[in-house]
Amino acid sequence: MEHNESHIISAGIIQHYFSQDIETNRSRNEQSIVTLAEEGAKLIVLSELHDSLYFCQTENVDNFDLAFPIPGDFTAFYGRIARENDVVIVASTFEKRARGLYHNTAVVFERDGSIAGIYRKMHIPDDPGFYEKFYFTPGDLGFEPIETSIGTLGVLVCWDQWYPEAARLMAMKGADILIYPTAIGWNPDDAIDEKRRQRDAWVTIQRAHAISNGIPVISVNRVGYEEDPSGQTSGIDFWGSSFIAGPQGEILTECPDSEADDRVCEINLSRSENVRRWWPFLRDRRIDAYGDLILRYRR
Amino acid sequence: MEHNESHIISAGIIQHYFSQDIETNRSRNEQSIVTLAEEGAKLIVLSELHDSLYFCQTENVDNFDLAFPIPGDFTAFYGRIARENDVVIVASTFEKRARGLYHNTAVVFERDGSIAGIYRKMHIPDDPGFYEKFYFTPGDLGFEPIETSIGTLGVLVCWDQWYPEAARLMAMKGADILIYPTAIGWNPDDAIDEKRRQRDAWVTIQRAHAISNGIPVISVNRVGYEEDPSGQTSGIDFWGSSFIAGPQGEILTECPDSEADDRVCEINLSRSENVRRWWPFLRDRRIDAYGDLILRYRR
Repeated sequence: MEHNESHIISAGIIQHYFSQDIETNRSRNEQSIVTLAEEGAKLIVLSELHDSLYFCQTENVDNFDLAFPIPGDFTAFYGRIARENDVVIVASTFEKRARGLYHNTAVVFERDGSIAGIYRKMHIPDDPGFYEKFYFTPGDLGFEPIETSIGTLGVLVCWDQWYPEAARLMAMKGADILIYPTAIGWNPDDAIDEKRRQRDAWVTIQRAHAISNGIPVISVNRVGYEEDPSGQTSGIDFWGSSFIAGPQGEILTECPDSEADDRVCEINLSRSENVRRWWPFLRDRRIDAYGDLILRYRR
Repeated sequence: MEHNESHIISAGIIQHYFSQDIETNRSRNEQSIVTLAEEGAKLIVLSELHDSLYFCQTENVDNFDLAFPIPGDFTAFYGRIARENDVVIVASTFEKRARGLYHNTAVVFERDGSIAGIYRKMHIPDDPGFYEKFYFTPGDLGFEPIETSIGTLGVLVCWDQWYPEAARLMAMKGADILIYPTAIGWNPDDAIDEKRRQRDAWVTIQRAHAISNGIPVISVNRVGYEEDPSGQTSGIDFWGSSFIAGPQGEILTECPDSEADDRVCEINLSRSENVRRWWPFLRDRRIDAYGDLILRYRR
């Protein structure tokens, strides 16, 4: 027996390449938001750190100039666009919280342009070409979904996507949907089969968060090549492949891996009710036996 | 830089259909184990409850006759086969622990035929056609991997496969590999696209456990149609599709969905070292913020 309530939202995703010029990036983001809103999108998700190049390829103190306070110039810009287009926007910024204290922060704007909430990236990566631990203090707001007029959004950021714990905690607090602004790409020197495995793993684990929690996932990545300013590595080929999956992990829409792409996709949030009735994973969690999850390792 | 230590094990998987006759099922299982051992398998994994039909399609007290104590007739039979063929075997049984106290239990046999350890299924499903809560008391041994001569095995069972918590806890205690004996299938009345989504979700979430933990996964399912003795449902089409995935979730081998299949596949356990060096997810877990995972829900 199907549960027939229907709650459909139109989600827009913006998969862009970016330049060194912040004003150009913002202007292109705004153009895309306007177009997607005209096409009916009520929720629009941008990729991670979408106002700049991915500056974490090197450790350079001058890059702290790219950070903005919240509220500030960044929130004024995207808040205005949310209001003018009557859309909820999930945006991403380099947050300057205090001198010497910075975060990788997602900001959710309500349709009236107000800030519905922020999420500070909790899991911070650090590997060659992705020196994020240099720039970003790990988030201190926990895994708290953000209430909006179109649903409760479980906003996480990039590296968080590898952690089922984060997705679970969002779902357990009522997230209707998981959202991952992302900046992930290939080392151009890697072999083609290694590249395929990496992208496939990235898609697979996020689809699994949808499955284990019975809610949809939106993941938006940047695209295109960005060189390493230090010349030490071969730079990064951001692999795009932004996608939306339904509550069984089924792919609803998927962008290409090597070009910019904006698109709108309908998500039926009430399908989660049916999926969770048939696959009631939340019912059977062995919370009496999960205590060791707060350990670093069990031996 | 690759880490060049190499630790390859040959794993054999046995995807069978079963009949009402236990002796026939056991005899066919033994034949397959002998053949796979001859082909070089050092670890052999059977599917869930492989000595009988999937009796949980109805709630019938007479089915408790199918249970065996540990140690007992079941462990004597498979222990002998392990010893005679010099292989580690992951077997699955309906355990009679006491009068009125039964478990769905995996038993790991060492190459000398001794019992290396047991795992009692922790997450117990219950939905039409899968009335497991009637038969199986939830496991009380927790998520403890089993040490063997060929590696530390994170043995879980079927419904556990939907829970990233279970996989994580096994990995955190040193599991080299995750193993899921399974009995999962389709309602024959479901539409083809629903069937596809279900099987795809089942593969995807287990691949994701490999990815998030950087270790391989072996999942072995039964295959073929079994009717519902009560005639209330259309029975179950067990979908086979047993597979082995590497530590990036990459599929190493995959069985068909509608026929019996025994096969051997090499797994390079030392690839986990490389994968975890490049994707050090264990390094960055936010254990300070995971406390709520032991709650039923967060609101």
